[in-house]
Amino acid sequence: MNNLLVAQSGGPTAAINATLAGILQGVRASGKIDIVYGARNGIEGAIKGQLIDLNETVSDTRAMDALTYTPSSALGTCRYKMKDWRADEAPYKKIIETFYKYGIRYFIYIGGNDSMDTVDKLDQYCRINGHDFIIMGAPKTIDNDLNLTDHSPGFGSAAKYIATTISELAADIGAFDLPAVTVVEIMGRNAGWLAASAALSRINGGAGADLIYLCERPLDPGKFLSDVREKLSRKSGILVTVSEGVKNSEGVYVSEHTANGAVDNFGHKYIAGAGRALEQLVRHEIGCKVRSVELNLMQRSAAHIASETDIMESMMLGQKALGCALDGETGRMAAIRRLSDEPYRVEFTSVPVCEVANHEKTVPQEWITPDGTDVTEEMISYLKPLIQGETNIKFKNGIPIQVKLY
Amino acid sequence: MNNLLVAQSGGPTAAINATLAGILQGVRASGKIDIVYGARNGIEGAIKGQLIDLNETVSDTRAMDALTYTPSSALGTCRYKMKDWRADEAPYKKIIETFYKYGIRYFIYIGGNDSMDTVDKLDQYCRINGHDFIIMGAPKTIDNDLNLTDHSPGFGSAAKYIATTISELAADIGAFDLPAVTVVEIMGRNAGWLAASAALSRINGGAGADLIYLCERPLDPGKFLSDVREKLSRKSGILVTVSEGVKNSEGVYVSEHTANGAVDNFGHKYIAGAGRALEQLVRHEIGCKVRSVELNLMQRSAAHIASETDIMESMMLGQKALGCALDGETGRMAAIRRLSDEPYRVEFTSVPVCEVANHEKTVPQEWITPDGTDVTEEMISYLKPLIQGETNIKFKNGIPIQVKLY
Repeated sequence: MNNLLVAQSGGPTAAINATLAGILQGVRASGKIDIVYGARNGIEGAIKGQLIDLNETVSDTRAMDALTYTPSSALGTCRYKMKDWRADEAPYKKIIETFYKYGIRYFIYIGGNDSMDTVDKLDQYCRINGHDFIIMGAPKTIDNDLNLTDHSPGFGSAAKYIATTISELAADIGAFDLPAVTVVEIMGRNAGWLAASAALSRINGGAGADLIYLCERPLDPGKFLSDVREKLSRKSGILVTVSEGVKNSEGVYVSEHTANGAVDNFGHKYIAGAGRALEQLVRHEIGCKVRSVELNLMQRSAAHIASETDIMESMMLGQKALGCALDGETGRMAAIRRLSDEPYRVEFTSVPVCEVANHEKTVPQEWITPDGTDVTEEMISYLKPLIQGETNIKFKNGIPIQVKLY
Repeated sequence: MNNLLVAQSGGPTAAINATLAGILQGVRASGKIDIVYGARNGIEGAIKGQLIDLNETVSDTRAMDALTYTPSSALGTCRYKMKDWRADEAPYKKIIETFYKYGIRYFIYIGGNDSMDTVDKLDQYCRINGHDFIIMGAPKTIDNDLNLTDHSPGFGSAAKYIATTISELAADIGAFDLPAVTVVEIMGRNAGWLAASAALSRINGGAGADLIYLCERPLDPGKFLSDVREKLSRKSGILVTVSEGVKNSEGVYVSEHTANGAVDNFGHKYIAGAGRALEQLVRHEIGCKVRSVELNLMQRSAAHIASETDIMESMMLGQKALGCALDGETGRMAAIRRLSDEPYRVEFTSVPVCEVANHEKTVPQEWITPDGTDVTEEMISYLKPLIQGETNIKFKNGIPIQVKLY
């Protein structure tokens, strides 16, 4: 049997199902796969043997189209961390068992940093133990922190949501003739790409983010307050955007509360509240009207305002990952190489997954303005192509059509 | 001179500029107005004599189209409370002075409850003092709490944003195979219409809000926890929506913190945190993963997902308010009368503004299910037509085009 298993992992995005749709389209075009299976809830489904036959579930172009534009992971997702097989071989054995049982030859894992770590470990395990399986990665993360790819599927759609939303919030805030500060907290634990995309709110010359603080640059509370006061002296309603993971010069998170000190399965600290902390600071030190807004889960799930560029590239990366797998590549991740900003041109390639796993691509310091309150023209040139185009998402009864695969 | 003054007031919406555009279109069609002025920042602009000549600023159809789809109040807004003229006549005199100075014969005020109070007082003042001005209201409020109109401009777009967003959040939350509760706080101080529209997230049979609590029904913490536990026993990720103004059986707001006891100009208490309070309750009493999400300003400013039905009706109400004014009606508000749900048919009419001002239309108890965790089919039939259709909003450089009039 020449079967393919696909799984999705980590935080959902508006584009991860487009990558799955791209793989399914590639399968049909190639004619080289007998059955495509989806694993439920990422690698956990492969461990537990919970597979879905995707040949039957997405059988026509309308269903394929609906899948492409459905946010979140239609196969379900997980945050499962594979330990080194020398420490715990059991899950590896179960995955291999599932592979043999279902005649799987190819496995494509769609995910971010941690998922690429799984791809890397599983590939190494197969090579060392003489299992002739092909293990490929397809990138996904709204954080845009994946190494060796110009940008990551899901990021462009999140950036378009953020740019659009910040421009709408700026219109709202600007309508009042009262001194007021609105602090918008944007996702990004260690990488400020998403917060940077708030700068695109001003791309047509209208109002947008007045101050942008990325987590790559320490935030000094005194400097922050003087930045805000200076802006308030020139306009009434000002809009501040900040990465959730912003830290002060001592390396301590600006967010005062790290909810119960909770840590996720990958050892990441659970952070919430940079926006709220800065809101409190403005309230106590400046005393004007102030509120904080969290873009929260909306920024990763707002498929209704997805970037057409992002969706198309996400599909292409699915097809690329499949193509590489069929060509016998293993332990690699499909990736985007940018050829030019204007006109925007990219090519699809593959990169060694071991150089992606456990690396984080953060914003270069030179793309942040010297005063640390905005991004440079280079950053705008990088970001702008990624939010271009609106999708052909279909509505029914006033809301977007979604599909679920299980 | 036969001039018209228009102003916008209160909280911005995604449809208030459509009403302004409707008025401007009506002006051209009628040929009965010499100059249309806009007052900056609502009635404050009329008091201060800060007017904008709108004949020049919105001169072609493209600009008119952009105005229609621009969120927030393009003329600026205010939360200015007119005192009774017997207590403070000065602002009334200044408004009348502005009217004479600019040759204003007609004044249309686009706003909600409090703005209709201004229309009512100003109309009475003119009548009593023998000023022959025409004072009309055009409705606007995402809260949908205006009396004597089937629904209010801005509400349908907010409801479409909420229904869409909740369906997207449900997709996100449903992808994880872990017990988790997400509490979404939706605007609505005394009226639960917006929170009710979360029920439309399930209109196509997909996942959506699992529990819906409106501010019209007291929320008992013990009952709430047992509702959540019951849902959690049947599915892993559950989504709760709640009106910001929900109270317990003693009439005390569920939100633990009423930010500094702040009160706005109309004496409304500033409320924040019903969602956060319920999040804390679940964390302490159930102990599973829990988060709260506030739809915050996004729900009133998300023009990119506005309801075409809402935008069209908002334009028509602007035209209706103008038509009534030209017919000599004064002290009245343009309104919508529903003729049928399916097919959806309405007619535009006018109602006495004194019966709108300072009234609040809340959700009927019989449209809430007996257990208080959902809405009935009657509510769905009422809400469904209001979110139908997507607008023809134009994008440039990846974000929606906006206009600003000053």
